[in-house]
Amino acid sequence: VSGTGSKPAGRIEQLCSLISNIEFSVSNEVLNQFSKDESQLPAMLPEIVVFPKSTQEVSALLKAAYALNIPIVPVGARTGKSGGSLCTQGGVALSLEKMNRVLNVNVINRTLTAQPGVVLDDLKSKAESAGLWYPPDPNSSYSCTLGGTIATNAGGPSALKYGVTGDYVLSMEWVTPQGEVLRVGRKTAKGVVGYDLVHLLVGSEGTLGVCTEVTVQLIPKPKEVVTALFQFASVALAIEFVTKAMGQGAFPRCLELIDDVALSVSAWPGIQSETGAVIIAESDGFHLDSVLAEMNLLRTLALEIGSSEPVVAQNESQRASIWNMRKCISIELKKLKGLKFSEDIVIPIDRLSQAVAEIKKLGERHQFTVATYGHAGDGNLHTNVLFGHTDEWPKVEVLLREIMELTVRLGGTISGEHGVGLSKREFLQLEQSPQLIDIQREIRRMFDPEGLMNPGKIFEL
Amino acid sequence: VSGTGSKPAGRIEQLCSLISNIEFSVSNEVLNQFSKDESQLPAMLPEIVVFPKSTQEVSALLKAAYALNIPIVPVGARTGKSGGSLCTQGGVALSLEKMNRVLNVNVINRTLTAQPGVVLDDLKSKAESAGLWYPPDPNSSYSCTLGGTIATNAGGPSALKYGVTGDYVLSMEWVTPQGEVLRVGRKTAKGVVGYDLVHLLVGSEGTLGVCTEVTVQLIPKPKEVVTALFQFASVALAIEFVTKAMGQGAFPRCLELIDDVALSVSAWPGIQSETGAVIIAESDGFHLDSVLAEMNLLRTLALEIGSSEPVVAQNESQRASIWNMRKCISIELKKLKGLKFSEDIVIPIDRLSQAVAEIKKLGERHQFTVATYGHAGDGNLHTNVLFGHTDEWPKVEVLLREIMELTVRLGGTISGEHGVGLSKREFLQLEQSPQLIDIQREIRRMFDPEGLMNPGKIFEL
Repeated sequence: VSGTGSKPAGRIEQLCSLISNIEFSVSNEVLNQFSKDESQLPAMLPEIVVFPKSTQEVSALLKAAYALNIPIVPVGARTGKSGGSLCTQGGVALSLEKMNRVLNVNVINRTLTAQPGVVLDDLKSKAESAGLWYPPDPNSSYSCTLGGTIATNAGGPSALKYGVTGDYVLSMEWVTPQGEVLRVGRKTAKGVVGYDLVHLLVGSEGTLGVCTEVTVQLIPKPKEVVTALFQFASVALAIEFVTKAMGQGAFPRCLELIDDVALSVSAWPGIQSETGAVIIAESDGFHLDSVLAEMNLLRTLALEIGSSEPVVAQNESQRASIWNMRKCISIELKKLKGLKFSEDIVIPIDRLSQAVAEIKKLGERHQFTVATYGHAGDGNLHTNVLFGHTDEWPKVEVLLREIMELTVRLGGTISGEHGVGLSKREFLQLEQSPQLIDIQREIRRMFDPEGLMNPGKIFEL
Repeated sequence: VSGTGSKPAGRIEQLCSLISNIEFSVSNEVLNQFSKDESQLPAMLPEIVVFPKSTQEVSALLKAAYALNIPIVPVGARTGKSGGSLCTQGGVALSLEKMNRVLNVNVINRTLTAQPGVVLDDLKSKAESAGLWYPPDPNSSYSCTLGGTIATNAGGPSALKYGVTGDYVLSMEWVTPQGEVLRVGRKTAKGVVGYDLVHLLVGSEGTLGVCTEVTVQLIPKPKEVVTALFQFASVALAIEFVTKAMGQGAFPRCLELIDDVALSVSAWPGIQSETGAVIIAESDGFHLDSVLAEMNLLRTLALEIGSSEPVVAQNESQRASIWNMRKCISIELKKLKGLKFSEDIVIPIDRLSQAVAEIKKLGERHQFTVATYGHAGDGNLHTNVLFGHTDEWPKVEVLLREIMELTVRLGGTISGEHGVGLSKREFLQLEQSPQLIDIQREIRRMFDPEGLMNPGKIFEL
């Protein structure tokens, strides 16, 4: 065996004998490392971490695990917030980190083909070197992997104008839970042959198999980007601005909200003392005049409702400083009380104002501080419940459930980018009917009759 | 019974007694009308045409048909080109034409909710009255229905920049083949809860049930559109232009090809005698300067490879006249020999030049005139085989198969917008592996264990 760590026992030893050419580890350090992700869930130890280097190795591993009835969880960079990569039943953590190459960039077809373990920013850089752009931009793009973004159909600030991961996936090489290698989708921009299995698999959170190669569509990279920071006296006014902008035909690429609580941890020098909420707006395009005109529309709307003059980034370093404030919120907020739980609900824009006000009230009633920030332009809010001790968790859960109920009552959805994983499983039936969940269960059983693939995630099989 | 026509017999009589409140017809005129679509396939008569007016009626009809083991085919406006709406086994043609209302346009959320029988141009007008835009624009938009475009995941010229139907569908009310009513998807821009069933159902060609209500995402309507007609000495040069434009970061909303044969039936006054092929290019945006700059990039690239000065439409009527030439090609080409078979292959852009040349050669070898036109910018070509008599059909089929084989060999797909239906069923396995087709078959069986829903389409159950 080519692995590290002490000799594995039982079914894992048997597995090792079947996959003797594939790199693995059973060392405590590595098992511990793979026992956590960015959710607040308790550590869940895999029994072995396997690092295949090819589709053939992934297929061999899945066949062996299936034969031995060992659960298996595909793992990217463990930046997920819903526990999607945690090993609920021990078994195998299948790390894709060694399959991290960009295989091809085709400038004429505007496609990029890569392995799932590539770090998203590396992929984005490769596209940009060719004058092209891959728009999905989750906060963790510096460390998350393409495969992870496919598992959760990840978004980011630019989703407002450019959509999410699934909108760019043309085709995949896909290994079924039983180890069969499939090619799904097509490498052309259009294609309507048979059922759209690509989109069934994107966002399936590692429950229907493992992606081993992906071809994504690229688009021309907008040459001009203008970033501005708008300050409002209150969150209500900031949301009024977003609602107005969306209702009056503005087409920015980002409209990011930072509420009063989130703002209190943001040490950005230009924030005025009377500011109660911030919107970071970004417009883009191929010609500066039109991008400035777009931003000017936003400025006019903001001034109408009492914003101060926006701070427009004059260069790349000012732009980076504004975004850095936004990107650090999650980490800084956590320091406030010690713990936090981050949600990613999506609210229809015409209910956003009501949602933000009611969430604030819910927090007060349950005596928790709630920070709300995120992708306000598409209604995708990160509501963060701050708390100090794990003892408070049951009370946090009650509040979270009420936020989820409110979300569904307002016509929203309980997850815009993190996925259901473990942490939203109990809320699934708030949003979806038993019949709809049953259809998904049947599809999952079809792919994975023994229920070995990422068990316990999304719904119980 | 509330129907028209002579008294139905056997199983259809039984069906009528179960759906006595639902409008239907068994008159020969109506049955004949529903026996054909825009494919070249022979007429296939339904035994009854039913016109439900509500989701409840659709559900009751499907339950009754399932109980009696009667096949049922959902039908839109019968503008499909692959036979998707033909009743291969008699039974029920389920017309959605009475469910044709736009139920809601929400300007702030940028969503539109409609019934499936709405004519696409009516929906597009409703969106535009609200200052918003629904981009999908199949050639038949004046008569095709939203439901039909969902069944085939239809595109059109603007798909080059704006994508296809599925990119805009957020949620659907869906009746399963056994009459169960589901709500799939969500009404917000983002959402990743559970498997993406919306995209599994979009493009399923009426084989997995019936859509009874749809919510689509709208976007701001570009304020400026510039349309230009580029003339080239040969098809090869026109394709070189497209390849160059795509390889050098141009981002037009349409790049439509008209080859020499298609041009010969196009009576557009401005075509020069030495012109061997035309590209209609369209750029759009919110500011005229940037749209003109985009068009100017195309002009520069075209002049470099010997195009004459492009004709830029100066007003809406010139623009309409250019598009009218493009839209009439299909009808005019048919007059050339009396019959034609239109394909909708998609070729990777970097193989487009090779594809067009080889298709021309294949036509010559089999002694058929082949016209090629369509959405060259995304590689989606309408190759039309012209012929004079149905006796030639077997020879046409041989040529078609060779074109499909070539398409797959060049990394393309056999259908970009028409779907598989009946006419491409025998070519499906050229593109997809038996394993992949089996997975689709299993999904279909899951939804429709008796195989009553649009039987015979895409693949045999």
